[in-house]
Amino acid sequence: MSKEITSRSEDYSQWYNDLVIKGNLADYSAVRGCMVIKPYGFTLWENMRDVLDKKFKETGHTNAYFPLFVPKSLFEAEEKNAEGFAKECAVVTHYRLKTDPNNKGKLIVDPDAKLEEELVVRPTSEAIIWNTYKKWIQSYRDLPILVNQWANVVRWEMRTRLFLRTAEFLWQEGHTAHATKEEAIEETEKMINVYADFVEQYMALPVIKGYKTENERFAGAEETYTIEALMQDGKALQSGTSHFLGQNFAKAFDVKFLNKEGKEEYVWATSWGVSTRLIGALIMAHSDDDGLIIPPRIAPFHVVLIPFLQKNVEERQVIEDKTYEIKQQLEAKGLRVIVDLDDTKRPGFKFAEYELKGIPVRMVIGPRDLENGVVEVARRDTKEKKSYTLEGLADSISQLLEDIQQSIYDKAVAFRDEHITKVDSWEAFTEVLDGKGGFILAHWDGTGETEDKIKELTKATIRCIPLGNELETGKCVLTGNPSKQRVLFARAY
Amino acid sequence: MSKEITSRSEDYSQWYNDLVIKGNLADYSAVRGCMVIKPYGFTLWENMRDVLDKKFKETGHTNAYFPLFVPKSLFEAEEKNAEGFAKECAVVTHYRLKTDPNNKGKLIVDPDAKLEEELVVRPTSEAIIWNTYKKWIQSYRDLPILVNQWANVVRWEMRTRLFLRTAEFLWQEGHTAHATKEEAIEETEKMINVYADFVEQYMALPVIKGYKTENERFAGAEETYTIEALMQDGKALQSGTSHFLGQNFAKAFDVKFLNKEGKEEYVWATSWGVSTRLIGALIMAHSDDDGLIIPPRIAPFHVVLIPFLQKNVEERQVIEDKTYEIKQQLEAKGLRVIVDLDDTKRPGFKFAEYELKGIPVRMVIGPRDLENGVVEVARRDTKEKKSYTLEGLADSISQLLEDIQQSIYDKAVAFRDEHITKVDSWEAFTEVLDGKGGFILAHWDGTGETEDKIKELTKATIRCIPLGNELETGKCVLTGNPSKQRVLFARAY
Repeated sequence: MSKEITSRSEDYSQWYNDLVIKGNLADYSAVRGCMVIKPYGFTLWENMRDVLDKKFKETGHTNAYFPLFVPKSLFEAEEKNAEGFAKECAVVTHYRLKTDPNNKGKLIVDPDAKLEEELVVRPTSEAIIWNTYKKWIQSYRDLPILVNQWANVVRWEMRTRLFLRTAEFLWQEGHTAHATKEEAIEETEKMINVYADFVEQYMALPVIKGYKTENERFAGAEETYTIEALMQDGKALQSGTSHFLGQNFAKAFDVKFLNKEGKEEYVWATSWGVSTRLIGALIMAHSDDDGLIIPPRIAPFHVVLIPFLQKNVEERQVIEDKTYEIKQQLEAKGLRVIVDLDDTKRPGFKFAEYELKGIPVRMVIGPRDLENGVVEVARRDTKEKKSYTLEGLADSISQLLEDIQQSIYDKAVAFRDEHITKVDSWEAFTEVLDGKGGFILAHWDGTGETEDKIKELTKATIRCIPLGNELETGKCVLTGNPSKQRVLFARAY
Repeated sequence: MSKEITSRSEDYSQWYNDLVIKGNLADYSAVRGCMVIKPYGFTLWENMRDVLDKKFKETGHTNAYFPLFVPKSLFEAEEKNAEGFAKECAVVTHYRLKTDPNNKGKLIVDPDAKLEEELVVRPTSEAIIWNTYKKWIQSYRDLPILVNQWANVVRWEMRTRLFLRTAEFLWQEGHTAHATKEEAIEETEKMINVYADFVEQYMALPVIKGYKTENERFAGAEETYTIEALMQDGKALQSGTSHFLGQNFAKAFDVKFLNKEGKEEYVWATSWGVSTRLIGALIMAHSDDDGLIIPPRIAPFHVVLIPFLQKNVEERQVIEDKTYEIKQQLEAKGLRVIVDLDDTKRPGFKFAEYELKGIPVRMVIGPRDLENGVVEVARRDTKEKKSYTLEGLADSISQLLEDIQQSIYDKAVAFRDEHITKVDSWEAFTEVLDGKGGFILAHWDGTGETEDKIKELTKATIRCIPLGNELETGKCVLTGNPSKQRVLFARAY
């Protein structure tokens, strides 16, 4: 194999980096903490984005676009939000460069072009958007506003990881405005369900839905809903959040409306987002030591066709023609297909290459098989090989792709279910955490102090209080104080 | 009418602003020079983007994503490019805010978080991309690279206009790398043709294709191709450009490849882009004093259905049911339809509102018409009204939309053709410029000095040297010096 992949057992973190870089998804850039999303990785993102975008539109949302920059005075208006993001803001202070008088061909920041007010590169857009909604909202007739934005955001991170934590990342952020609290909460819940459905049905990744503790809430939110997924190393990954913002931003930006009774009220808000971080979750949840495993529904390509190219020109032509015929049949079924005609590389090399890239199905088209009316098909997830008859090939491959999607999901569900452990003592808590890992359901006394202490001692955090959580009296796993329910702990990305 | 639109004759520039703002396309924001693209305007952009994206993919390109920030040292590597953009760069100098010790609740830039090297917010991405391509390209086998990016860019502008010139705008930028000069030139020409086809066939706006003079070229390009459209006030608008960059960026970033003969060569480059500026062109080319006129192929909505809502509940239900039945029929044909059931507004008010928004077809569904098996249809472009039978309605409306598309285009072509004037004297040149306006075909002696002088005297610039331009000896309209061909002058946005 040309590209050595570090195994998971050897170095999980290096394995992840190898998959991202050697799998051609993304790469580091010349800018500290910023990544380049390569065409293969971006196609994956486009496929995910397109499904989500459709779901947003089906639930009544439209897209819009708000400025990249937030004037500092707006940024600081909602205090908690500002406090939460101030430490990681890229700040524009000047609007011009000029030639360096002492250094030919070099540029320096022009001190005469200093901005009167600094601009923050958006780490999230509540401030700029609520300042805009103020102009859009007068009466209950202007509500609800159901707007989403696909955008880049910047959060200056000291320790970055490709896709998982980068200074700049791509995301969508929904920002809605409502006349009533109930409607806003309903929206918040609706969108966490949209995310959960997407992640489970398209990314083949089971999630646990819940809400965050006060400590873990989005800065400026009254309630944060989350979906939490489990990675193969037993760590959790927050995969999407939906925030009920109460009237905090409406108050910060003085956004009121006249209700049906002619009375002025502050508007209720939500915001919700998922980002390119989801790609990190996808990679870590499903892939193996040979490379990426990508669920068919969002895979950039479904099938790679590899004809055995003969030396003899006529024989070669027959195989090539057949290959393109099959390609056409598969494409007619809506499948995304690539053909590899490169004869400078050996089949073994190619197989490893496409396994690395996680193309769900590999089809080898050879002269002897063709005589028998079959092709050899290998699925990426299980590595299982099987002959498929040419008759009805497109249908059977479509079915195979559905089976692969289901099978990847089932495997992830089984792994997740095996890694939810109920514990009732501090000893068991730390033992599970350092041993099998995964989610831990344990009693907690409900205080932020205990939560902080547990985090300090173990690096585990409360991922969420699961939706529909059963009430159960018990004793806090750390303090022994009374508890009303178990909550979901894990170490997390 | 609720929203007064300034007429073109009264104040063309205010008319344009009225359409953008009152037509709900975009608005000013709290950030100087940055706009908010509202849902209606963004849907228009999505429709344009989707068509272009498909065309890019059909011509072999894939999308990727590169960082928003360009380190200053990379930015200055290609000197001409750097010089061209240095004066309008937003510069990030710090990565953290902190609480102001003297002013509770306020934030200040943390002086301890000064970046070692400043980051330029991309005004265009050649530098960051060619610095990346250096890693991607070793041999001729790695070429061509055919990559496009949809992104936001920032060019600090002192005098901004919604869509036409904003500090931040949305665009796509293609960046391709080739093994030969010929192939790069072919790509440059291919993409200007893709743009021209899109603008003509979808935006219903005829363009003149040509290349720029040296003075007007993109900073860092060897040749800039352009498409130039004509606005109703007789001014030209550059609507898309495609640049042959030669080996300038390859040399600046030391990007070489081993050719088939095993010899090292610098890579050849192109870049090409269109932006949200196209929306400005669209508005100014087609709209009238009552509002926007949007060609059906990219219109956010094709048809608005306005039922005459009766007081009587049963009668009302009949009309409503019929309205939704029609909606369904139209949607089954792929049309985008909205229904207006608001009975707090009079029909006249609604009609004006949808005319302002430029919805191509308005359909009124009334009880008496229904009895006769017809509906009343008004087209936005000509304001013509006609009864359409319910039988085959979806087909006839589809046909009507095609007719409207063609008719808007034909009108724009006629206007453009009437406004291309050949002149042979300086007197005629200035007379046309100050009188009927539009494009002027005139002889030019080929020097940058003359071009500058003409610009200084009249504000007219050479928009392009049309592709396939006829050679014709003559005398320069300003200097009387010998000229080999006429070139296309105009005042421009």
